[in-house]
Amino acid sequence: LARKGPAIAIDAMGGDRAPREVVQGAILWARENPQVPLCLAGDEARVREELRLGGWDGKNIEVVPSRCVIDMGDSPVEALRKKKGSSIEVATRLVKEGKAFAVVGAGNTGACVAASTLLLGVLPNVKKAGIAVTFSTGDTRVVVIDVGANVYSKPDHLIQYGIMASLYAREILEVEHPRVGLLNIGEEDEKGNALAKTTHALFQKTKLNFIGNVEGVELFRGACEVAVCDGFVGNIVLKTAEGMAERFLGLFHKALRESIDGQPHAAEVGAALKKAMGQLERKLDYSEYGGAPLLGVNGVTIIAHGRSDRKAIFNAIRVARRMGEIDLNTRFSEELCALSA
Amino acid sequence: LARKGPAIAIDAMGGDRAPREVVQGAILWARENPQVPLCLAGDEARVREELRLGGWDGKNIEVVPSRCVIDMGDSPVEALRKKKGSSIEVATRLVKEGKAFAVVGAGNTGACVAASTLLLGVLPNVKKAGIAVTFSTGDTRVVVIDVGANVYSKPDHLIQYGIMASLYAREILEVEHPRVGLLNIGEEDEKGNALAKTTHALFQKTKLNFIGNVEGVELFRGACEVAVCDGFVGNIVLKTAEGMAERFLGLFHKALRESIDGQPHAAEVGAALKKAMGQLERKLDYSEYGGAPLLGVNGVTIIAHGRSDRKAIFNAIRVARRMGEIDLNTRFSEELCALSA
Repeated sequence: LARKGPAIAIDAMGGDRAPREVVQGAILWARENPQVPLCLAGDEARVREELRLGGWDGKNIEVVPSRCVIDMGDSPVEALRKKKGSSIEVATRLVKEGKAFAVVGAGNTGACVAASTLLLGVLPNVKKAGIAVTFSTGDTRVVVIDVGANVYSKPDHLIQYGIMASLYAREILEVEHPRVGLLNIGEEDEKGNALAKTTHALFQKTKLNFIGNVEGVELFRGACEVAVCDGFVGNIVLKTAEGMAERFLGLFHKALRESIDGQPHAAEVGAALKKAMGQLERKLDYSEYGGAPLLGVNGVTIIAHGRSDRKAIFNAIRVARRMGEIDLNTRFSEELCALSA
Repeated sequence: LARKGPAIAIDAMGGDRAPREVVQGAILWARENPQVPLCLAGDEARVREELRLGGWDGKNIEVVPSRCVIDMGDSPVEALRKKKGSSIEVATRLVKEGKAFAVVGAGNTGACVAASTLLLGVLPNVKKAGIAVTFSTGDTRVVVIDVGANVYSKPDHLIQYGIMASLYAREILEVEHPRVGLLNIGEEDEKGNALAKTTHALFQKTKLNFIGNVEGVELFRGACEVAVCDGFVGNIVLKTAEGMAERFLGLFHKALRESIDGQPHAAEVGAALKKAMGQLERKLDYSEYGGAPLLGVNGVTIIAHGRSDRKAIFNAIRVARRMGEIDLNTRFSEELCALSA
């Protein structure tokens, strides 16, 4: 396992609302957690200006200068090669060099994954890293792994994802005995493509709380706390769910607005609706869940949403800290070592 | 091409609300369309009783007795082999024997697909049949193909799906130049797994209005009218979207109810909300879109939703009729022949 530094490194330039929201999120966290140093990798002048605007005296937050930014549209691996000294590279290198134990990035997801896998590598006994996203709809929560780190998954990669996500759900989401499902096109054991069939048979031999195949519709019904799939399927599922949430919220707002226009008690109705929508949006709010960990890398890597605001960054740092604190990586390696034995 | 009979065959026993809603939907359609005979395959006594309850004198609707029903939980191919004379088999056989040109089924989707592919086979020049589902959110509509007929898709299958769904969107959904996208994990040309990459290159050589890769989030933003994917991915996307819609509607109802409880104008607010929700649910209502055609089989096969009510059955019959009327299958064969030449 990598030598672990005391700090958390943050790509201050990554995300649609960087550096403003990233730096402000870091300040929020630093105020509450003075014992853990933060390193902000980014354009030094801009980051210092944001720190000043946030009223931060600089204590406990170090600025580490970067030379450029990998944009959302850049091709990840190519950009990492060509844009030397990018903020995500600088932040990730702080983990590699043992100054930090974790890196948080809200920028180009592919670049964050590539930087971590190239610079940090995978943990002993881990074959491929996978991104674990928590889908939440208030009463139900399910960790879906992998949502796009690895589009050429093999059965043993999926088994490892199940084991790591199960530990993650237990230790970070505090689910006592996480039920693990294999995302598939039917519940019967023999359903699916070749990858799904082989993986299903292998899962049955593990000590996980494996409940068998789960269909997409079950993700929102609380059927399991961990759903495993290959990165191609998982990424499409994640993006479809995002698109649908966006569209639904838009349609609801429109329908509700139209329904009260010209009504006798429009003001009161409007206020009640606004309250209801606010509650609902908070239930569906990704920013509460602290970003998606890239499980299996030799370090802690948290991928925050591209639209992250300061609260989302705060929560991403919180999850990074917690994963380091309980040393989840050592647990992963031990479980996977036991499996391969 | 198959000899085409004048009738539309319907599995009267298929679906959660069969035979009641299926038979009543058939009656609704027969009242408006006396020139097209319908054949209801099912338990003779029960179907006749439903016809009587619907006040139908029997004219133009023939009852064709079946011996059993393939249930939702049955394994499709096995059930077709063991449950001889099932309602879906009897209905599909009417197309094979040249009495009907189309079959409509709301029961076990896998059994409906298996019956059609085994009994009717695929059209000349077609390699695999695919299920085309229309995702609609009011202002946007996109035909996603395949959502589960073929989990071992090859690049040329996906190209054929794109061609058939494009014609379907043009002729049935009345979209003038349907834009065709490849469902993938990023917009850049080189994204995705091996299947996606090869298919992308092949699509660029066709005469389709191919717009490149589309991500899941774009399905609900009106980026394209046809989205192509393999049946494993498509089925998971479809079920995820269904699960999310179900969950969202539930959460909205709950949030709205809670927001008006004890409010001064609870009654008025409640009425306005009820109206808004009704409008919205109609926008998202699958029953408007007449079921999903299994494109590529030598006959017209329409798979209606398992929860179909009479209106959904009515619309499924309408689409079946329209596909036969304009002889979409001949068009498919011609286009695909031109492609392979």
